[in-house]
Amino acid sequence: MKLWISTIIAAFSLNVQATTLPLDKDLAYKLVESLTVEVGPRLAGSEADIRSVIWAEQHFKQLGFDKVWREPFEMLYWERGDASLRVGAPFNQALVLTALGGSVGTPFDGITAQVVMFNTLEELIAAEPSQVKDRIVFINHALEKDIRGGFYGQVVGGRARGAVEAAKLGAKALLIRSVGSSSNRFAHTGQMRYEEGVPRIPAAAISVPDALQLSKMLSRNPEVSLSLQMNNKLPGTVTSHNVIAEITGSKRPDEIVLISAHLDSWDEGTGALDDGAGVGIVMATAALLKQEKPERTIRVVLFGNEEGGLIGARAYAARHHQQLHKHVFASESDFGAGRVWRFDTGMGEQALQFARQIQQQLAPLGIAMGPNTASGGPDVSILKAQGVPVASLMQDGTDYFDYHHTPNDTLDKIDPTALRQNLEAWLIMTRAIANSSVDLRQ
Amino acid sequence: MKLWISTIIAAFSLNVQATTLPLDKDLAYKLVESLTVEVGPRLAGSEADIRSVIWAEQHFKQLGFDKVWREPFEMLYWERGDASLRVGAPFNQALVLTALGGSVGTPFDGITAQVVMFNTLEELIAAEPSQVKDRIVFINHALEKDIRGGFYGQVVGGRARGAVEAAKLGAKALLIRSVGSSSNRFAHTGQMRYEEGVPRIPAAAISVPDALQLSKMLSRNPEVSLSLQMNNKLPGTVTSHNVIAEITGSKRPDEIVLISAHLDSWDEGTGALDDGAGVGIVMATAALLKQEKPERTIRVVLFGNEEGGLIGARAYAARHHQQLHKHVFASESDFGAGRVWRFDTGMGEQALQFARQIQQQLAPLGIAMGPNTASGGPDVSILKAQGVPVASLMQDGTDYFDYHHTPNDTLDKIDPTALRQNLEAWLIMTRAIANSSVDLRQ
Repeated sequence: MKLWISTIIAAFSLNVQATTLPLDKDLAYKLVESLTVEVGPRLAGSEADIRSVIWAEQHFKQLGFDKVWREPFEMLYWERGDASLRVGAPFNQALVLTALGGSVGTPFDGITAQVVMFNTLEELIAAEPSQVKDRIVFINHALEKDIRGGFYGQVVGGRARGAVEAAKLGAKALLIRSVGSSSNRFAHTGQMRYEEGVPRIPAAAISVPDALQLSKMLSRNPEVSLSLQMNNKLPGTVTSHNVIAEITGSKRPDEIVLISAHLDSWDEGTGALDDGAGVGIVMATAALLKQEKPERTIRVVLFGNEEGGLIGARAYAARHHQQLHKHVFASESDFGAGRVWRFDTGMGEQALQFARQIQQQLAPLGIAMGPNTASGGPDVSILKAQGVPVASLMQDGTDYFDYHHTPNDTLDKIDPTALRQNLEAWLIMTRAIANSSVDLRQ
Repeated sequence: MKLWISTIIAAFSLNVQATTLPLDKDLAYKLVESLTVEVGPRLAGSEADIRSVIWAEQHFKQLGFDKVWREPFEMLYWERGDASLRVGAPFNQALVLTALGGSVGTPFDGITAQVVMFNTLEELIAAEPSQVKDRIVFINHALEKDIRGGFYGQVVGGRARGAVEAAKLGAKALLIRSVGSSSNRFAHTGQMRYEEGVPRIPAAAISVPDALQLSKMLSRNPEVSLSLQMNNKLPGTVTSHNVIAEITGSKRPDEIVLISAHLDSWDEGTGALDDGAGVGIVMATAALLKQEKPERTIRVVLFGNEEGGLIGARAYAARHHQQLHKHVFASESDFGAGRVWRFDTGMGEQALQFARQIQQQLAPLGIAMGPNTASGGPDVSILKAQGVPVASLMQDGTDYFDYHHTPNDTLDKIDPTALRQNLEAWLIMTRAIANSSVDLRQ
């Protein structure tokens, strides 16, 4: 272990002894508070990522889990540097931006070029190279709110694939309107991708007010130029970890009920909604169920590097490939801290009768029965693809994209009452499945 | 004139010809849109300040004002540099901050010191030097919302005088909780002051979520240290301007009805609410009244450097000292773009009957009669102090301190419908006074 890492760990272990938290309905909140205040932002692969792993191990132990361990995996580390964007004459002003995760930086002197605006990724793909060549592409795709955050999926393509499509047509850089629903002047980060054989151009998001501002400038003067500077770092491969803890089943300990969240977060907020809330909910759920001696084993998995592309989940699936048939169920909490409003399943047809019994217990919390098309959550979707039955306690995501992936994802955005409702729902679902012998695959 | 300034002005004049704006009820909105998009942030004394002066002159001329001129004044220029704040071990994380206007920077290597928290400025003043010496002082004073933004006045003392009081007790730097009512993670700037004979220490504000975060850290570990770096610039004296334009009175041209706003803004937003909205409202009011040939002269004053301490207003009062008896009335729009809900006056007792007649015309817009204690607005309060009668069309400021003095003060925060209501109210008030011969001093 490198010296600086040991120093940090020593300092951390010395100064923040995990407080003993009472096993009550506020436990989920106390956990997310502890994680976001004491560790704060925890970008996968960073020094803070290591602190979050130690934090998780300490708290699992103090909550009385029977087993606690970490599982390492390799990942490509990316680190944000400074970023600035200025509009040239005649407007001479700065816009608020953030680098997209994984983006290369600009040359030292930056990139200065005229901008060309498209309303969607599809419009960009359909453009002539002559419109795009040597320009900075701006995709100005707006997001509309809904409870499922469904629009996100339609808009996020510009973030993920925009740089590749723009580079194919000869663009020098990509800017996107933030994939967020808030009119606050925060730019919204998230992972982007490159493609083998296509030039890697810098990619960044500007805030919604800045997207409005830039489009108004372009309507006044289509010849306006932008100067973009970014110095992100790509230091290469590092080790990160999934942290795992179990309450051993009292009757069928080899049958695993997996409940999960992801431990990593983007670096600009403190990762309270994404996904500190989920971490608090699933840790608290298992800790509170321990005293009931569940029949099956409850395994809590805190995945590493979800944000970089489900890297921890893929490592988990690979490592546990031979034991996945013993995973009787999996679910993840990763959509903020809004109230649960629907119980979706992804299991065998025969098991749906049992699922409806669970929903009847959830109904007093205002939770309806949903379709049998649940993914189980981003990380858990990897397990579902390998046949593990799943469910999703769907959270109200109306405001989720106001905050997530921005500096504004902080503890004060969590409503403790809504978080208690989440914990109650997770207790009901997890208890029912852990004490049942129903085969959810059938 | 320096070369870089002429270059900028040439580029600006060349590329942004003021569009001819229709003389209708949307004129106020069109003006604030033009100012915030085309000029953007316009810190007093900066290059953008010069562009805003040119913008104002061009638009006054195109709107058909009879006279347009600028009046220079000297001011101390301050410019924001980079700023960063990190919490040390065991928390190791960055907090969001902004330098307060006028603050000195830190030494090149920054300042690292333990932090001591006070809930109010008064608590700090009452502290023992041993509590404060060589520390970074943090004043964690919360702001509560109300329609008049009244709490601002109680809290803002920590911003204005905190650095002096902290330095008297030997502190190394001052941090305040943002003097804002939003839980968004924006820090809120504003002017601070130093005092002769007291060491000048750096002063900055942290956002409300960061103030909560820091206080939670301190409750876990009171020994936590902070590292603050700021490199603000104080380049000295520069020239700024008030921009003035008139509709000459048709019957009593020597009697001046002064309506005003301030042209400068803080540098992190685009100054839409503070005070682009006011600029749009008063320019539109006079432009629309021109066709009615008002009896008294309507003078629009766009004050420079309000934010630095009413510097333009003081210059105006000094320059026009001999003509202030000919100023029959003054008022300023500078509290955002919320609906007008009350008509406050600051005039002679006999004139109040006339004021009540004006209020009766305002009543259909939902505007009540207020007390006779109006300041007239920040800049106009300087004129009131010299005997000029004033009024204030009080705006709903419930959300004003969510945005003002932050990067989030952008055009999209203005409700065009509320802005039209403002314009209608200003038309009624200004028309009545400009066509009256009532002496508002009596």
